[in-house]
Amino acid sequence: MMAKTVDKKILQAKNIIDIETMNVEDISLILDTALSMKEIMSRDIKKVPALRGKMIANMFFESSTRTRTSFEIAAKMLSADTVSFTASGSSMSKGETLLDTVRNIIAMGPDLLVMRHASSGAPYFVAKNINIPVINAGDGRHEHPSQALLDLFTVREKKGKLKGLKVSIVGDILHSRVARSDIYAFKKMGANVRLVGPPAFIPDYFRQFGAEIFYDMEKGIKDADVIIMLRIQIERQGKNFFPDIREYYELYGLKENILCFAKDDLLVMHPGPLNRGVEIDSEVADGKHSVILDQVTNGVAVRAALLYLLLGSRTDENID
Amino acid sequence: MMAKTVDKKILQAKNIIDIETMNVEDISLILDTALSMKEIMSRDIKKVPALRGKMIANMFFESSTRTRTSFEIAAKMLSADTVSFTASGSSMSKGETLLDTVRNIIAMGPDLLVMRHASSGAPYFVAKNINIPVINAGDGRHEHPSQALLDLFTVREKKGKLKGLKVSIVGDILHSRVARSDIYAFKKMGANVRLVGPPAFIPDYFRQFGAEIFYDMEKGIKDADVIIMLRIQIERQGKNFFPDIREYYELYGLKENILCFAKDDLLVMHPGPLNRGVEIDSEVADGKHSVILDQVTNGVAVRAALLYLLLGSRTDENID
Amino acid sequence: MMAKTVDKKILQAKNIIDIETMNVEDISLILDTALSMKEIMSRDIKKVPALRGKMIANMFFESSTRTRTSFEIAAKMLSADTVSFTASGSSMSKGETLLDTVRNIIAMGPDLLVMRHASSGAPYFVAKNINIPVINAGDGRHEHPSQALLDLFTVREKKGKLKGLKVSIVGDILHSRVARSDIYAFKKMGANVRLVGPPAFIPDYFRQFGAEIFYDMEKGIKDADVIIMLRIQIERQGKNFFPDIREYYELYGLKENILCFAKDDLLVMHPGPLNRGVEIDSEVADGKHSVILDQVTNGVAVRAALLYLLLGSRTDENID
Repeated sequence: MMAKTVDKKILQAKNIIDIETMNVEDISLILDTALSMKEIMSRDIKKVPALRGKMIANMFFESSTRTRTSFEIAAKMLSADTVSFTASGSSMSKGETLLDTVRNIIAMGPDLLVMRHASSGAPYFVAKNINIPVINAGDGRHEHPSQALLDLFTVREKKGKLKGLKVSIVGDILHSRVARSDIYAFKKMGANVRLVGPPAFIPDYFRQFGAEIFYDMEKGIKDADVIIMLRIQIERQGKNFFPDIREYYELYGLKENILCFAKDDLLVMHPGPLNRGVEIDSEVADGKHSVILDQVTNGVAVRAALLYLLLGSRTDENID
Repeated sequence: MMAKTVDKKILQAKNIIDIETMNVEDISLILDTALSMKEIMSRDIKKVPALRGKMIANMFFESSTRTRTSFEIAAKMLSADTVSFTASGSSMSKGETLLDTVRNIIAMGPDLLVMRHASSGAPYFVAKNINIPVINAGDGRHEHPSQALLDLFTVREKKGKLKGLKVSIVGDILHSRVARSDIYAFKKMGANVRLVGPPAFIPDYFRQFGAEIFYDMEKGIKDADVIIMLRIQIERQGKNFFPDIREYYELYGLKENILCFAKDDLLVMHPGPLNRGVEIDSEVADGKHSVILDQVTNGVAVRAALLYLLLGSRTDENID
Repeated sequence: MMAKTVDKKILQAKNIIDIETMNVEDISLILDTALSMKEIMSRDIKKVPALRGKMIANMFFESSTRTRTSFEIAAKMLSADTVSFTASGSSMSKGETLLDTVRNIIAMGPDLLVMRHASSGAPYFVAKNINIPVINAGDGRHEHPSQALLDLFTVREKKGKLKGLKVSIVGDILHSRVARSDIYAFKKMGANVRLVGPPAFIPDYFRQFGAEIFYDMEKGIKDADVIIMLRIQIERQGKNFFPDIREYYELYGLKENILCFAKDDLLVMHPGPLNRGVEIDSEVADGKHSVILDQVTNGVAVRAALLYLLLGSRTDENID
C-alpha cells in the first residue's frame, strides 16, 4: 500500500536525533514518504497494516499534548501498538536514573522509542546506550527534528519547492529548539534563513549557522516567502529580555498591517501552542496566509513516515 | 453484524449535544441500536469491526473515570482507535484557547470528538466550529445526554415501556446536568417527571420544563415506577443549602423504610459515583430494586450506539 | 500457536492473589507457559491473536511504571484490549468506596482485572466480590505474586533448576511484598531461602516461613546461587531503622568486593527501581552476574502467561 518507489530506498540514519547531522537524501526520503502517508490520511479508513505487531514506546519526560498525540495517531495509522509514559507517573520520581528507566522499558521489548526530555542531548545519550531506534521529540533547547521536517513538508507542499525561498524565523531564537532545527533544515534544503527578534533573543553566534540576523521586524520579513513565528514562552521568561509583552507585541508581533512587507503569497507558520495577542495577532493566525493547522496535519504524516522508515521498510526488505 | 433493520435508518442529528433539541425518532433509533450493541457485549468475543480504522478523540477538560472509560470501551468494542486528553496534561495550561486546542487535535484527523467541559455550552460552541461529529459527555450544569439516554434504555429494558411511567428525580436538581437531561428525555418519551428535594435545590423555574416539584420525599416518590437519586456533590456544596449531611439524609436520603411509598416493582437508579449514607442507604443501593450497575453496563451499549450511528452507519450507506 | 502440551493443562487457581496459597502444579504450568510467551517475544512480529476481543482492566490505586506497563505490553502481545485507571483520576477521590469503583468498571464488561492497592488484602476482598479473574499486581506489604513468578522463571532459565539452590534475599524484608512472595515461591520450588539484613528489617517471626535469618552480609550470602537485593524505600523509611544510608550501604550494600563469598556463577537480581549506591553498587548492577534486565523481559512473558491461562486457554477448551 506504500508507493513501490518509496519502498526501495532506505533511511541511512538509524535514529532521528537532530537535523544538524541528517543528510539531504534522508530528508528528501522522509518528505517523499510523508506524501504517501498524507494520502493514507485522506482515506475513509485511515489505517494500513504496515507496522502491525510493532510496539512504539513514547517516553515524554517533559509534558506535551500535540507532539505525543501526533506520534500516537501516526503509530495507530500504521497499526502499531503504543505504550506511553510521562515523567510524573514514572519511577524517576523514585530516584531511578534516566538510563535505568529507559533500559527497563526497552527490556520489555518495544521496537522504537520516541522521547522528549528537558535536557539537551538526552536522546543522543540514550540512543548510544540502547539497541532500538530513537526519535527525539524535543530535547531542551537543542533540537526538535520532527517539527522541522513537518515545516519543510508544509512549505514544499504549498510552494512546490524549498530552494531559494526566503524564510524568516521570528522570536526567541535563543531558547527555541524549533528554531535550531528549522535553521538547519531550511539551510540544508537551499532556503535563505533570517532570524528576527530582539538582540537578547539572538546572540551573535547564531551567524555561524549561515543565517542573517535582523533586529527590525519590517526589514526581517521583507519579501519573505515564509514567516515562522515562535511561541513566546511567557512562563519561562525572566524579566530581563524585554520590558513587557505589550512592547514585544508592538515590535515583533505578527500583525495584519505589516504583512505587506512580505510576499503576496506569504506562508505564516507557528509550531503552537499559539499565544494570540502576544507573538501573533488573531487575524493573522486565522487569516489566508496561515498554514498553522496544515502543519499539525502534516505532523502526523511526517511522524508516520519516520516510524515507517525506521521500522517498516527495513523489515519488509530484511535489512538491519 | 448489526440488525439489518437498524442499518436502514439514519440519525438526523449530526452531533449529540443535548436532549433538549433531540427529536423522538433519533432517541428511539439510539435506544434500538443500543439493544444490538448490548447483544454484542454478551458475546464471548465482544468485538466487531464496524468502526475499524476510525479514530475517536476523547477530550476531557473535567476529570472523569466512568464516562471516559465507558466511551473508550464502547469505541474498542467497535474496533475504533482512541486518543485521550485530560485538562492537566494539555496545552491549555500553556495559555492556549479551547478552540485552538480542539482545532489542533481535529487537524490530526480524528473522525469524532467526545468532550467534557466545565463550561455549559462549550461542546455546542466547539461543534459549530469544527467539521466532525461532537458528543457532549457533560458540560457544566447544562446537559449530559448520554447519561439520560442510558437511563431511558435501562428503564425501557426493565419496564418494557417509557410512556406513562412516574419518574421521580431526587436531590440537587439545580446543579445537576444529569437531572436536566433526564427531565427532557423522560418528558419526550411520555413519562411523568417529578423533581424532589429541598427548595434551595429546585428553583421554581423548573416548573417550565413540565415537571412537578415536591419538597416532601414521601409525597415526591408516591407510586413512583422509577426513582433517580442524584449525587450530592459534597465537595461543591456551600454551607447555605442545608444544615448538614445528616439532616439531608434524614429528609431526602433513599432508605429502605420509605420504599413502601413507591410501587412494588420500583426501579432505583443513580448516575454514580455513590455517596453511601448521604443520598442513598447501602441496603437500597445493593437491594432488589437497584439497577445502578445495569445503568453502567447499558452506558457502554448506548455510547457504542452513538458512535456507530454518527460514524458507522452513515459510512456503510455512503451518506454524508 | 501455543505449544500443544501447554494447552491441555489448565490453571487450578481462578485468581492470582498470592503465592502463599498457590500450588506447585500451577506454578510449574505458569513457568512453562511463560516459556512459550518468551518465544513469541523473540519474533519479529511479537503479536498473536490468542486474546483478541478480550478486555483487560488495569486498576492501579498505587502508582507504578514498570508493572503496569509490563501487564499492558503482555496484553497487547496477546491482542487483548486494555483500559487503565490510576488512583488520582478516579472516582475514589470523590468519596466512592473501593468496591463501588471496581464494580462499576466490572459492569462495563472487562474480562479480567489487574489491580495494585496500598492495602494488604484488597485484591482478595475484591476477587471475592466480583465474577471475573483478578491478578494482584502488589497489595501493601502483603504479596506481589507476578514478581515472584518472574523471579522463579529467571532463575530456572539461567540455572536449569530451582530445587536445592541457595537464595539470599537482602534488605528491608519486613516492608517488602516482593520478599514475602519470593520466600513462598522459592520455598515451594525446593530452594533454600535466607533472609539478610539488619534486625529491625527482619523480625523473628519470619523464621516461621522456613527461612534462615542472617544479620551479617558475608555469612548471609555465603555460597549463594542467587542474591535478590531489595530496594531501600528511602522515601518511606523513618530514622529509627538504621543510622544512615552510608552505613547501610557499608554493611548490606552489594559491592564487587563481597561477591567472592557467593558462588562463581552467582545470579544478582533486583525488582527495581534501583537505588545505585544505596543497596547495590553500579559495578554489580551492570556486572556479569546481574540478570536485572532479564527479570524485566521475563516479567512480560510471565504476565502474558497469567493472562493467557486465566482467559485464553479456558475459552479455547470451553472450560469455565
